[in-house]
This record gives sequence, C-alpha cells and structure tokens, in this order.
Amino acid sequence: MAKTNLPLDADRLWADVMALGDITDPARPWTRRSFTALFLEGRAWLAGKFAEAGLATRIDTAGNLIGRLEGANPTLGVIAIGSHSDTVPSGGRFDGIAGVATGLEIVRALRDAGIRLEHTIEVIDFLAEEPSEYGLSCVGSRGVTGLLDDKMLTLTEPGGETLRDALRRVGGDPDRLDAARRDDIKAFLELHIEQGIVLESQSLDIGIVTSIVGIRRLEVIFQGEADHAGTTPLGLRHDALVAAAATVSAVRRIAEGLDAEGEDYFVATVGILNVEPSASNIVPGRCRMIIDARTTNPALTQRFVEAIDRDSLAAAVAARVTRATFETLSNGAPAACDPELRTMLRAGARDLGLGETDLPSGAGHDAGFMSRICPAAMVFVPCRAGKSHAPEEWADREAIAAGAAVILQALKALDQSLAHNANSGAR
Amino acid sequence: MAKTNLPLDADRLWADVMALGDITDPARPWTRRSFTALFLEGRAWLAGKFAEAGLATRIDTAGNLIGRLEGANPTLGVIAIGSHSDTVPSGGRFDGIAGVATGLEIVRALRDAGIRLEHTIEVIDFLAEEPSEYGLSCVGSRGVTGLLDDKMLTLTEPGGETLRDALRRVGGDPDRLDAARRDDIKAFLELHIEQGIVLESQSLDIGIVTSIVGIRRLEVIFQGEADHAGTTPLGLRHDALVAAAATVSAVRRIAEGLDAEGEDYFVATVGILNVEPSASNIVPGRCRMIIDARTTNPALTQRFVEAIDRDSLAAAVAARVTRATFETLSNGAPAACDPELRTMLRAGARDLGLGETDLPSGAGHDAGFMSRICPAAMVFVPCRAGKSHAPEEWADREAIAAGAAVILQALKALDQSLAHNANSGAR
Repeated sequence: MAKTNLPLDADRLWADVMALGDITDPARPWTRRSFTALFLEGRAWLAGKFAEAGLATRIDTAGNLIGRLEGANPTLGVIAIGSHSDTVPSGGRFDGIAGVATGLEIVRALRDAGIRLEHTIEVIDFLAEEPSEYGLSCVGSRGVTGLLDDKMLTLTEPGGETLRDALRRVGGDPDRLDAARRDDIKAFLELHIEQGIVLESQSLDIGIVTSIVGIRRLEVIFQGEADHAGTTPLGLRHDALVAAAATVSAVRRIAEGLDAEGEDYFVATVGILNVEPSASNIVPGRCRMIIDARTTNPALTQRFVEAIDRDSLAAAVAARVTRATFETLSNGAPAACDPELRTMLRAGARDLGLGETDLPSGAGHDAGFMSRICPAAMVFVPCRAGKSHAPEEWADREAIAAGAAVILQALKALDQSLAHNANSGAR
Repeated sequence: MAKTNLPLDADRLWADVMALGDITDPARPWTRRSFTALFLEGRAWLAGKFAEAGLATRIDTAGNLIGRLEGANPTLGVIAIGSHSDTVPSGGRFDGIAGVATGLEIVRALRDAGIRLEHTIEVIDFLAEEPSEYGLSCVGSRGVTGLLDDKMLTLTEPGGETLRDALRRVGGDPDRLDAARRDDIKAFLELHIEQGIVLESQSLDIGIVTSIVGIRRLEVIFQGEADHAGTTPLGLRHDALVAAAATVSAVRRIAEGLDAEGEDYFVATVGILNVEPSASNIVPGRCRMIIDARTTNPALTQRFVEAIDRDSLAAAVAARVTRATFETLSNGAPAACDPELRTMLRAGARDLGLGETDLPSGAGHDAGFMSRICPAAMVFVPCRAGKSHAPEEWADREAIAAGAAVILQALKALDQSLAHNANSGAR
C-alpha cells in the first residue's frame, strides 16, 4: 500500500474518528445511539468541526447534519459526501463515523491545497442509519430521497415517543419533510468499512462497491401441538420445531445453490428462531423464524422465495403441522452504484498506487437510498477480520486515509467532468 | 364400559377431584404449585378429608401428607396408595389429584362396606411431584425411597429460598430425612390419567402400566461466530443454528428408527432450542438445545446417545462450528411395574367388565421411585385427546371411578395374597 504522499492529512482524519468514537456510553463502548443525548453531543462536536473547516452548517428537516462549502459555480449543484455518526448498541468506532470524518477531511484538504471546486460540496451526517429504537433504519437518507412517510413517523419507541416527536427533538421538522427532499445533488460518494473479509483476505486497499444488496425479510410460523414429550408417540406428534429445523436446512442449501450459480452475490440467514412453549418435556407447539435473504440480483431472491415457499410447506406436511404464516416483512431492491463514478474511483485508486477490486455490499447503506435520486458510489476499506457491529471493530489509520484519498481524487475528476457536461449541455 | 355397580361412590370421588381442583390461582387455572400458600390450602383441605374418613394424618419428614388406616394385622406392614396434589403452571384438575382422591375414596368405600383389611393402608399425597421452582421433581417420593440427598436440598428457587428451607416450611424436617425412608411398605398402587391417547383411541377403560420410562436429558451447545448476515459469504460462516437444525432432524430420524425396531417404547424430543444473539441480521453464534429421550429399554437410549453424539459432531464439522457441550443432565432408569400386581389389576378390571390393555408410561411418576423399595403398579385412565399439563386436561367421572374400582379390587386381592404369603413364610 502507498502510505505516503496522500493528498490529505491521515493523522487529522484519524484524530476525528477517534474523538467521535470516544463520545460513547462508558458502560458499553462503543455506543452512541441515534436520538440520545450522547448522539446530540457527538453532533455538537461534529458541527464545531464543520464550522472550523469553513462549512456553513445546518440541520435539514429530516434531521441530517449538513456542512456546505459553496462552489465556484453554484448553479452546477451539489456533490455530497457522507455517512452516519450513530452506532448500534456496543458497536464500533468506524461504521459510519469513518465516512463522515472522510467528508470533513476532504473539505479541509481542498482548502489546504488552495483548491476551489466548481460544485458546491456538502458533507452529510445522515440521521439514524442504524435500526433505531423506533424500528426504522436510514431515517435521514429516506428523508432526503422523499421516502420518509407519515406512517413511518408514527413508529414509537418502547418508552412511548413517536419518531415524529424524536425527529423534532433532534432539530428536524416532521411537518416540513418536503423541504429535505433534494433535486440539486448531482452525485453522492460514501466511504465505509467493508464489514466483511474480502479485502483483508486478498490484501487489497480499496473495494469499489458494484451494488448494495436488496434485503428481503420473511416471517415463517409453523403451528403444531404442544403435547407431552413422554406420552405422545412419534407417529402422533405435530412438532413445529421438526418443520422449522428442516426449513433452516433448506434455507442454507438453497442459498448455497443460488450463490454458486455465477457472478451474483446471494446470502440467506435464519437469525431468529423462537420455540414455544420452550420446555424440555413438551413437544414444540409453535415455531417462528425470520429469514433474511440478500442479493445483488432480485431474480435470485424471487427464485429463493419460491423454493423456500415450496420446501417449508413440504416440511410442514411431513411434520403434520400447519404453516400458519409465510409473509414478506420487507423487500428492499438492490441499488446499483453508478458505473461512471466507479470508473473515477478506480482511476483514483490506481493514481495513488492502491490495490482495488470490485465487490458487492452485503449490508445496507445511506448510499443505497441516495442512488435513487442521483449517481452514487461507495468505497470500502478493509476492517480487521471483517468484524463490525461489535466493540472489536477495527480499521487502520492508513486504510481509512487511503480510502478518503481515493474519494478526494474521484471528487476532483467528477467536479471537472460534471462541469464539462453541464457546459456542453448549455451550449 | 360398565358404569354401574362399582364398589365405591363415583360422585363422592368426583366431588373431591373437583373441590381440590378449585383451589387454584384464579388468574391461571388450574394452578396449585408446590410450596405455595395455595398448595398448603389444598393440603389443609385434604387433611380434613383424610380425618373425616377416619385416617390418622401426619406429614413425614420428606413433606408427604399421609393418612393411615390401621389394619387388622399391623405386623404385616403397609399397602400404600397415592399420587400428588401439586400441579404444573396452568395445568389441569386431574394429573396427580385423581390418584390422591382415589386413595381417599378407597378407604371410605372399605369403611362403608364394613371391610377391614389385614394390612395397614396409607394414602399418600407425595410432595412436589411436578418439577418445582427449585428444579427438582418427585421430592416426596425421592424422600420416601432415600433418594433425596443433601445436594438436592441446596437447590434454590429464583427468590433465593433453598429447597431445605422450603421443605421445613411445608412441615417436613430436612435434618431428619432418614425418618421418611420406609421399609414397611409392601406394595404401592397409583391411579393416574394416561396423558396420552392410546386408551381413548382404542375405546378402552383401563391401562395397566408395564413400565415407567427412564428419561435421559442431554444438553448440546454449538459455538460458532456471530457475523454480519449481509457481508459474510456463506462459505465463510460459522452458523451455530445450521448445526443445531441438522441435529434436531437427526434426533427425530434416529428416534423413529429405534421406536420402529420392536416392542420397546422410544421417543425423543428437542423441546428447547435457544439461538444467540437472535437478531435477523446476525448469523447465529451460539445455539443450545435440550434433548429429552425416553424409553422402557435402556439399551435403546444408549444407542440413541451414541448416534446423536456422532451425528451432532458431524453437523458441527459440516457447519464449521464447535460442539462446545454434549452432556447428560439427568439419566433416570426405567422402572418396571410388578408383574403380580399387574395380574391383580388385570383381574380386577375383568371382574368389573372393563376393557383393559397393557401400556408403557412415557411420563415419570411417583410410582417410578416407589418401585425401588417395593412392588409397585399403576392404573391409567383415559383423558380427553391425551391433553395434560394444560387447562383443557379432562377425564370423565366414570373413567376415574372405574380406575379407582380396579385398584380397590386389586387391593383386596393383594391384602389376602400378601397376608397368605407372610403366614406361609412364618411357618
């Protein structure tokens, strides 16, 4: 990896990542949940840093913290860079944070180099990217793209507060969400830790995201009968867990088959399996499972769901139970990253002598929503052992700086390219 | 079924069953948990009934409520009849209760008929047959048979009380448990609802229990890694649930094979399966399961455990997880019912014109412990749809009376037979 002569200050970037991470619930590092007092403390710190860097800082009606640097030609619109500063409970110091700090460092690096871009640059800290206590993720990027609707605002956390009230409390305005919708953003770039082990295992510096998976969540419930585990002969049982176990095995088998077919990424997981009544001497009467299937190719998800539909029904019949529920809980479409932006990111990595590869994102990101209103792309940087959403999450100083430098290189090329296209179009 | 001319009062017996059942937690019928105030209220009611029936009533040092009717020849020793008055949470009105009420009614029927037996008769309400909050079942019958040890007395319920203190609180004496051990009981008879559907499905009145299953409980824990369900490719996962699901399927498959081999009864169940961390977007990092295997033939259990040992290890290897635990939690031997007592019960049923069959007990019972110190046998009566340990548990008035009458007939024959043998032996 080329560690020297990066066009930005790796130490300054690293200091920001560490400082923001340190604003944590001391009882369970590293935790800074959206909508909490700690979250607002983190944002106040960030807003100060934005201002120091010469950014005009505001919170939009969807609760996003935005720092703005006017371009030489404001009519060209905005290029946005960002991610999120909230964390999962007992999460890490890099997921989201590294992307926000990258935006900030890029603005400072441009200033230090005396470069003024044609486009206005915005650094965005999107509100509540992680699933919050209100049961919704990507609140801020939904707002920017017009996908935060009134029904979502009625979601309520266990303490009784609605998302509507929480949004107001952090500086948003739920009654004026339209004001957060944007048509002036011409491109969006996001740096994020990979949260996987592809880059580390191949000793590469940069992942250029091809697409962000679509996530389909299915709920399956088997209803049997809770009988005495001693007195009910096997042939007379209606054991819901026997059907559920066969379905867990089918999920893995079918997913492996689809993933092995070719280029497309496919994974499926049963992460939740509840057994009732859950007593050692009672035949399980009811089992509920959640299946999470992710792919870059919606056709694979469709085939997966059809196969699981068939196999789970067969498992129910074999165990003499009823498949009471087979329901899609959510169904997000994959988001393709923009090919031209990817080309610019690849060129940036090569200019800097960094090893790069294309790879899909198995996790959802704010960039997935942003891709609905503008060309969007992402840079992944390696993280240790692929661990994320855990205190041991780690990315090296040099890895983050390298990723930020790739975005900076691409940003400069993009600024010129978009300006040229706009001028051509104006002729 | 012959419903008339039974040598006892079916209505009086039924009234006792209903009255004891009515002493329930009103919020969750039918609940009268051992060691609770309600349990003591039920026992006070029972003790009053015992006294009314002319029984000398006491509580032994193991906490059993015992009513005693002296025989004509006290040196012959005791024939005991009994079961238990405690229930599972939200249980039924018959499990255990019907057996205690049967003992009481038999004493009254003998008195009404002017019959005095040679042997002393004891009616026993065993303490805490159902698994209690202290984590132990059959507390009283363990005590009578010398199997309630000091380690068990240190068991503690969630509120912090030890079984030792609880036993003292209900009238036992944990420091003098030896006084509860009996060598004067010459035979034990217990009536119980079947808790299965064999009798109902064959329209039979009486089940004569051949043996009470031995119960082997195994704990199996698979330890994998809790990774991101989106970013961890299938080939790099260590999914504990995939191994656990394969093991659930193996438990069922192996049990069906053993049960199909021949005469012996065999069932196995996975009633508890815990998944951690239990989030839809995290690959399960750890799964714990409890396997409950029951049989009348310990050799089958041995083969079952060997097969599950092999298959669960193979499942762990296939899923690239560790089988962290494979441990026997408890291992009770099957208890055979006494052949001579069974013959007397069969003769009693036939005398009364009742349909009977031999069948194994898949559930544990106080009679299982009693069989270790004396000949013991059980009569099962049909219960609706085999439901037990549930509010809808039901047995008909006539069914219970018929079972009690069979025990009464056998008791009279047994009294004569044992007296004759004792006299022969004395010569």
